[in-house]
Amino acid sequence: MIKVAIIGSGNVAQHLIVAFENSQIKDNAVELIQIFSRKREKLAHLITLERITDDYQKLVEADVYIIAVSDDAIAGVVAKIPFKNRLVVHTSGSFPLNALNENNRRGVFYPLQTFSKNKTVDFSTIPICLESENPFDYQILNSVAKSISNSVFAINSQQRKALHVAAVFVNNFTNYLYQIGNEICEQHHVPFEILKPLIAETANKILVLSPQEAQTGPAKRNDSETIQAHETFLLDENHLLIYKLLTQAIKDNGKKL
Amino acid sequence: MIKVAIIGSGNVAQHLIVAFENSQIKDNAVELIQIFSRKREKLAHLITLERITDDYQKLVEADVYIIAVSDDAIAGVVAKIPFKNRLVVHTSGSFPLNALNENNRRGVFYPLQTFSKNKTVDFSTIPICLESENPFDYQILNSVAKSISNSVFAINSQQRKALHVAAVFVNNFTNYLYQIGNEICEQHHVPFEILKPLIAETANKILVLSPQEAQTGPAKRNDSETIQAHETFLLDENHLLIYKLLTQAIKDNGKKL
Repeated sequence: MIKVAIIGSGNVAQHLIVAFENSQIKDNAVELIQIFSRKREKLAHLITLERITDDYQKLVEADVYIIAVSDDAIAGVVAKIPFKNRLVVHTSGSFPLNALNENNRRGVFYPLQTFSKNKTVDFSTIPICLESENPFDYQILNSVAKSISNSVFAINSQQRKALHVAAVFVNNFTNYLYQIGNEICEQHHVPFEILKPLIAETANKILVLSPQEAQTGPAKRNDSETIQAHETFLLDENHLLIYKLLTQAIKDNGKKL
Repeated sequence: MIKVAIIGSGNVAQHLIVAFENSQIKDNAVELIQIFSRKREKLAHLITLERITDDYQKLVEADVYIIAVSDDAIAGVVAKIPFKNRLVVHTSGSFPLNALNENNRRGVFYPLQTFSKNKTVDFSTIPICLESENPFDYQILNSVAKSISNSVFAINSQQRKALHVAAVFVNNFTNYLYQIGNEICEQHHVPFEILKPLIAETANKILVLSPQEAQTGPAKRNDSETIQAHETFLLDENHLLIYKLLTQAIKDNGKKL
């Protein structure tokens, strides 16, 4: 049985705790033996207090320590780890492996998903991107990851950086486009609800078509009359700037192909 | 029983034919009596040839004629319609109601969804936006729309224009962000597959959270270190421009709130 400890109590840590606890019910391959949280009560709804410590000196021996804290807190955690030569991994998309202290064996355990506090996710479908310094540690991480997910990938630090930037486009920026859609609806007293099936279908399409195949709309058709009408219609300077830039990009892209 | 005729043979027309044929199996409230298609064989896989005409003069009497052709073909169809005083509607998001000929009673029957040739859609969840010149015609359109969809809205021409522009943001532009994600993955030899669960969850979140609540990422957190690292990382001038503009917009938006 592989022993896992988690350091952190935020969104990612909490989703990982739930995933490991559920996996242990099905299969005893991985055991979540301890959590470090500065406030023990914060996790009391997920796990018994005996398994939560707020003292780095009381961290028990584990096969892998997963640091699940925000990027700017990683260095602080690393500085406080009291042991050596153990496998310590972080869960960050943007931190390189070597941001961890070389006193320990280093690795990355990056679940590529957006986690919200009050929205459960099915961890089994979440891709987990792994990196380690040696093949033995990779095997440990691989077993741990496979106990909670069906989608596990070996991804080096450079590739992970690419995924993290790409994720900003498909997640953060896409969500901001939803917000612009919402703002346009509000300005014209139309319920945003009407757009939700379109949002769902746009995301669904990408499961079966490439983005190039799925592209539609006035920019793709080079329909200058509609584009002109939209540009005249947009009241918000910021919406207009984004409309123009993305329309031009889609038009130029058509020329490239 | 309300008699419906469809003029057109493209994506929207074909999806409507399937939806009306399926609805008639369940409930006899609406009958699809005829389709106009310049090439009758094009629709032979969907409907018997007897119900397809390629001659405007042979259009039979119906309670409503749905013009389901591309925007730039609507004027051509309107010019060829040989009858008067009947209810004629188009399916366009961007055309105003009064683009139709006033010899007939005019209306709009706009299903707000993205239709692909080889991907079936569940029409019952697709919002249909209706507009008419008088309440009696609205009742006809409402009955026709409700026979195929559970989501029917009265939307005037100005509101429909807003929805159409908003749809460009949440559908066409979002799909283009997926393409940028794909391009970044290809440049760094990472499978785009890894991003698909994130794309799905980003769209899912918007069903339960407002776009403002759902917004995450370095721009939202004002995490200048990560933003700087991403900007250095991006190889493509076009990706960089879009990254900068959307990052700035999300940051400014945070200040507004």
